[in-house]
Amino acid sequence: MPKTVVGVMGPGSGASETDCARANELGGEIARAGWVLLSGGRDEGVMDAASRGAKREGGLTVGILPSIGATGMSQFIDIPIVTGMGEARNNINVLSSQVVFVCGMGPGTASEAALALKAGRHVVLLEAGAEADRFFTKLDPKKTHVVASVREAVDVARHLLDSPV
Amino acid sequence: MPKTVVGVMGPGSGASETDCARANELGGEIARAGWVLLSGGRDEGVMDAASRGAKREGGLTVGILPSIGATGMSQFIDIPIVTGMGEARNNINVLSSQVVFVCGMGPGTASEAALALKAGRHVVLLEAGAEADRFFTKLDPKKTHVVASVREAVDVARHLLDSPV
Amino acid sequence: MPKTVVGVMGPGSGASETDCARANELGGEIARAGWVLLSGGRDEGVMDAASRGAKREGGLTVGILPSIGATGMSQFIDIPIVTGMGEARNNINVLSSQVVFVCGMGPGTASEAALALKAGRHVVLLEAGAEADRFFTKLDPKKTHVVASVREAVDVARHLLDSPV
Amino acid sequence: MPKTVVGVMGPGSGASETDCARANELGGEIARAGWVLLSGGRDEGVMDAASRGAKREGGLTVGILPSIGATGMSQFIDIPIVTGMGEARNNINVLSSQVVFVCGMGPGTASEAALALKAGRHVVLLEAGAEADRFFTKLDPKKTHVVASVREAVDVARHLLDSPV
Repeated sequence: MPKTVVGVMGPGSGASETDCARANELGGEIARAGWVLLSGGRDEGVMDAASRGAKREGGLTVGILPSIGATGMSQFIDIPIVTGMGEARNNINVLSSQVVFVCGMGPGTASEAALALKAGRHVVLLEAGAEADRFFTKLDPKKTHVVASVREAVDVARHLLDSPV
Repeated sequence: MPKTVVGVMGPGSGASETDCARANELGGEIARAGWVLLSGGRDEGVMDAASRGAKREGGLTVGILPSIGATGMSQFIDIPIVTGMGEARNNINVLSSQVVFVCGMGPGTASEAALALKAGRHVVLLEAGAEADRFFTKLDPKKTHVVASVREAVDVARHLLDSPV
Repeated sequence: MPKTVVGVMGPGSGASETDCARANELGGEIARAGWVLLSGGRDEGVMDAASRGAKREGGLTVGILPSIGATGMSQFIDIPIVTGMGEARNNINVLSSQVVFVCGMGPGTASEAALALKAGRHVVLLEAGAEADRFFTKLDPKKTHVVASVREAVDVARHLLDSPV
Repeated sequence: MPKTVVGVMGPGSGASETDCARANELGGEIARAGWVLLSGGRDEGVMDAASRGAKREGGLTVGILPSIGATGMSQFIDIPIVTGMGEARNNINVLSSQVVFVCGMGPGTASEAALALKAGRHVVLLEAGAEADRFFTKLDPKKTHVVASVREAVDVARHLLDSPV
């Protein structure tokens, strides 16, 4: 019986302080829920902050690294998956996540939200901005969930994970 | 000296008649410009229409197929590149294109526009819809070009290809 | 500080009973050593047997799945990584493994041993057959280790993991 | 109706002079046969020599590049496919080739021969060495063809391409 894996996607170097604070809080809540946290694994921005939050609460973290080695990996990753395939790994991030949380926005993050919807995953948008909220809701209103807080994000995810597919 | 390769991205089965008509016209113009047309290679929607247009004008077409075999390939593809990697091949589509034309919009197409911006490619949006126009312009105003016609799309691309990088 | 991840590669449906018995024993030893076991994740042959062995000893198992969904996944996988990229995922298997154990032989397994050597990983061959032993030793005598038992395989790996890179 | 695409795989910097001479001759014969030549696209060894041979005879060349940009690309590539996914692109090389020629041997080349057999492609081995000849013949005696000259390699391929699948 596999563990429940959820993804947290968001900008790396372009993340705002608010993005990182939310990601850190979200990572902690994910660990407390007993879910494995999956991210892009790098030592920047939302990936790093979410993983740090999960480790603070004793969670397990997986990082899907774009590079060919461990350079640039977050120190809060327990299990590094080394892909060596750059941004093409974004599809693995979302396919491997039962729910995809998006925290902040940028080009790589946008590709992850779009790939998640393409793969039929639910996407929970937090701090993505008004244009992103409108765009992804237009793309797929049933699978896009715009939320206003970490608590709401986790509640939405819990509800989705409890629902029969 | 490699040929100039440009990509045309857009919905498959979800493409509208207008999307396909524009893609067909765009494919023809790309061939007349002497550029190689690259697409996702399937026998549906924008990919198929653009490739058909390019072949009508004697162009050369490359299809980056998501499947492991040639099933579902457009009959207007000269050179099939078989990836067997599903939507992760979207990153190859944009990395291999010097300019990325987007015709219509959907989740897969959105991922391609986003991956293109992430890779520093210029994206030319045609019939993408107001929400997409605003979202991608917000993501990267310098590399996103919203155009109103096939003629304008090709003019923008010609200007970009002639400019020193 | 990431966990130590080692890979066990081998045939799926083509695995012999001996291959599976060795893989099962090896999986158990990997878990007892405190290492995370990574495999191709499917419910057949060496992948399944090694993961079963690791779970019996309370280990943690990661499966890098070739498919787009969880169909065909071993029930002994804790953390499924869903790639949707078929055999191209073999490169991820070896890049993510600090040492690559090979148990048995087949075309997919051969690609993993070769990709491991290409990436500079050490490869430990168990039950690979005389032709494979000679071929991979010729390809890279320093990184190829032919062993005669599970105990020797684990001893070689422990020595390699303890050595400064 | 797509063009016939055949692949030439072989070592890059590790290629011998003989490997390169054979690859150059083979590339020329491929072009004369009217086939598109596909390779790994880099400016070294067998890839470069085969592409140079094909261009000398007026052929069309495709290069499946491992890098994220055109750096290190052979100047004899007409159509660069930029994957940014390192050695994982080896699977694309063989899936996209109707017949896979192997010229010389090394770890990357071995992975391509193995992935080709895994995908059911025929592999024609030229100058691969006795250990490789034996190993791949053992892996799949029906799909592995050991040849002694470029002429024989092309004859075998022509026969395979003319046969009903």
